[in-house]
Amino acid sequence: MVKKVVIVGGGAAGIDVLELLLRGKGAADAEELEITLLKKEHEGFFSMCGLPFALQGLYQIKDLDLFEPEFYRAQGIEFRTGTEVTRINLEERYVHLDSGEDLSYDELVIATGSRPFIPPIEGTDLEGVYTLNTREDGEKVDAALHAEETRNAVIIGAGWIGLQAAVAFSKRGITTRVVEKLPYPLPAILDADIASLVKKRLDKEITFMFGRTVRALRGARHVKSVLVDNEEFPADIVLISAGVRPNVDLARAAGIAIGESGGIVTDPALRVKKGNLYLANVYALGDCLEVIDAVTHHPRLSQLASTALIQARVVANNIRGISSSYGPCLSPTVATISGLQIGSVGVITEVARRYGIPLKSGSAVKYTRARFFPDRKLIVAKLLFEARSQRLIGAQLISEETVAERINELTLAIRAGITARDIWMRERCFDPSLTMVEDVLVDAALKACHL
Amino acid sequence: MVKKVVIVGGGAAGIDVLELLLRGKGAADAEELEITLLKKEHEGFFSMCGLPFALQGLYQIKDLDLFEPEFYRAQGIEFRTGTEVTRINLEERYVHLDSGEDLSYDELVIATGSRPFIPPIEGTDLEGVYTLNTREDGEKVDAALHAEETRNAVIIGAGWIGLQAAVAFSKRGITTRVVEKLPYPLPAILDADIASLVKKRLDKEITFMFGRTVRALRGARHVKSVLVDNEEFPADIVLISAGVRPNVDLARAAGIAIGESGGIVTDPALRVKKGNLYLANVYALGDCLEVIDAVTHHPRLSQLASTALIQARVVANNIRGISSSYGPCLSPTVATISGLQIGSVGVITEVARRYGIPLKSGSAVKYTRARFFPDRKLIVAKLLFEARSQRLIGAQLISEETVAERINELTLAIRAGITARDIWMRERCFDPSLTMVEDVLVDAALKACHL
Repeated sequence: MVKKVVIVGGGAAGIDVLELLLRGKGAADAEELEITLLKKEHEGFFSMCGLPFALQGLYQIKDLDLFEPEFYRAQGIEFRTGTEVTRINLEERYVHLDSGEDLSYDELVIATGSRPFIPPIEGTDLEGVYTLNTREDGEKVDAALHAEETRNAVIIGAGWIGLQAAVAFSKRGITTRVVEKLPYPLPAILDADIASLVKKRLDKEITFMFGRTVRALRGARHVKSVLVDNEEFPADIVLISAGVRPNVDLARAAGIAIGESGGIVTDPALRVKKGNLYLANVYALGDCLEVIDAVTHHPRLSQLASTALIQARVVANNIRGISSSYGPCLSPTVATISGLQIGSVGVITEVARRYGIPLKSGSAVKYTRARFFPDRKLIVAKLLFEARSQRLIGAQLISEETVAERINELTLAIRAGITARDIWMRERCFDPSLTMVEDVLVDAALKACHL
Repeated sequence: MVKKVVIVGGGAAGIDVLELLLRGKGAADAEELEITLLKKEHEGFFSMCGLPFALQGLYQIKDLDLFEPEFYRAQGIEFRTGTEVTRINLEERYVHLDSGEDLSYDELVIATGSRPFIPPIEGTDLEGVYTLNTREDGEKVDAALHAEETRNAVIIGAGWIGLQAAVAFSKRGITTRVVEKLPYPLPAILDADIASLVKKRLDKEITFMFGRTVRALRGARHVKSVLVDNEEFPADIVLISAGVRPNVDLARAAGIAIGESGGIVTDPALRVKKGNLYLANVYALGDCLEVIDAVTHHPRLSQLASTALIQARVVANNIRGISSSYGPCLSPTVATISGLQIGSVGVITEVARRYGIPLKSGSAVKYTRARFFPDRKLIVAKLLFEARSQRLIGAQLISEETVAERINELTLAIRAGITARDIWMRERCFDPSLTMVEDVLVDAALKACHL
């Protein structure tokens, strides 16, 4: 029997499911699948995460087109771009398209992603005001950056996208101001003390305006200035990077349960909920999904390409009849901002406080390699432990090297229930060209728990 | 009451104990300690691991003098260099020195380290024949490398030291041959397939002679040639880097138990054994110690500075009355050879076979960063899983970046009982500038276990 799979959404989440189903296609026991992917956008598999570096000039936006639609079509996939799903009918198992067409499914995958949050202020519809959430956004911003008249920029929000864009804007010689309500950058993943080090490093190239609020964007047709509290600043370009919200309108209209975080609720098999039932043949994943936090056990969002990949394995397996489940989430995250690698995993202090988790935390600064080694870099580490058990529940790192792999290690450490004492006593490899014999993580654990 | 601690040996192991005891000195509950460290050599804390890079010209040998003896003496330590212990009297609790002096102790720490293995062939006592195990060795080799008449070198053994020295010799323009009995380099930590990639990379700068045996070193007073099987090669300098053996003569003469690996036997508190008893006040650690392998559960050696540090924590704690124990050992190891980072942890295939552990293994090659990212490097990973449980028990990595931190992550993974499926399903951080969304370790796990 041929099973019809319809995937709604062609961002990382939807395409990951597609790719994993294709990989399984050859297997002897594989049911025959007829797969349709529906996406609004016009490209195939595009790497959104690579966009900020394209704006910085490291490569072209077109280099991020990893696979064209034809690549999938040649493998027998109905890969439909420029196509919007306007309604899901769960009872009769079909989706209604903007073309008027109805498309029936046996298994439905909802991967509708997220959209930028636009603050409710005047002027956000002016020309020259952008977000950075699609390939098209990227092309518009890139064109604006190349325009000679672009001299002054205001970026709203100092998260990953805001900071990476700010570096790109500055590199083009544009005077760039970043306005952030909170008193420091990357507030979702860093504590104030660690974030202040990021700020200090970036202060040379970006003008930060922390603890300040954008009240309005002004201009006739094109944006000309930004009102920050009571002060007006010139702006030929404004980038709104104030976070993203799950795209759940379609799911909500179909009666699918939406959680307190704003994401779609599922069971561990990633099957969506309607009323009191989890639907056997409807899955959701990616930015539109609500996950459970592995430390707090509370629902939240995890809008990362890396999260989507793991969820896609679960969905693809379940569609292929291999029972698979998705567990609570630590959401390790990392990025490079102007040569500085910044990483975080687990809870930050503010989240621990919010959920009443008592903390012991310790920070240390050290070299990445032996102190006599010429290429060594500084590294800052902050580790958060649950006070009673001394189990690791969060980590924040900054350095010019080794951050991503250390975040992966710490993700595993949190998962494995590692304590401060375990960090102190565990074996690490040593070579003076690559590590210190007594690592910065050991120092941070020592400071947190006075070992 | 003042407690007299005598540490025999001033390599990494002995000095780590010293440093950790000094750190604990300020504590309110700390017993007063009178610490004596006895070492044959004339320097304070010297980084042996840094020596190969000094020979390569990255810095001077003197840069590796991390702390002079005076540094410790100023803190009240009796730091005695140029002093050899010739006998230990366990019954009467004193050590006898080459000066004729007897030195009593309450707690004794045996950190006598290791010495190079010298193959039983003629000519190893000729001038121009060196080992690389002490600062003095390093200075002699450095001087020989700078001598104009040094044109041809033969290095016996293709382990870490042999390869790192070979790179240093080649950089000085010396024709360098590395002779290794086994058919590939780094046989103690790499499988043949992974080692062959190292060989391929180094073939440009080093002449390897694998599967061949040195029969004799020839010359009148100074070495002139090396007989390899039946072929003679010119050699103005010969480096013997055929492994090291634990220095246990002193311990053995005192009646302390020596294990099947040739190292000193201890209990988990690192207290030595005599007859049927573990001695409450005599500890051993470092290169002279026998450890238990965490995968095979069989005794072996772990002659690494990083191993010594963890053991030193156990010894220092126990001396201070804080009960502490040392567990089975994974011995993660890493080094840079000519820009190539090579790492290994857990068992290799040959060890698994020797102990009858059924294996599933998988290798993969991938980029370290997104494939559209300009600075990406290739990375090769081989993962070894116990066949039935699919638990990770060994890993080997080669790349120009990220190897050391990945080895630390994999050490933790083995320790935590991670399976191939766990690797496939676990969260990893992603940013195209730093990682691939689907990591090389995931690919290797997939290949090993056909997930």
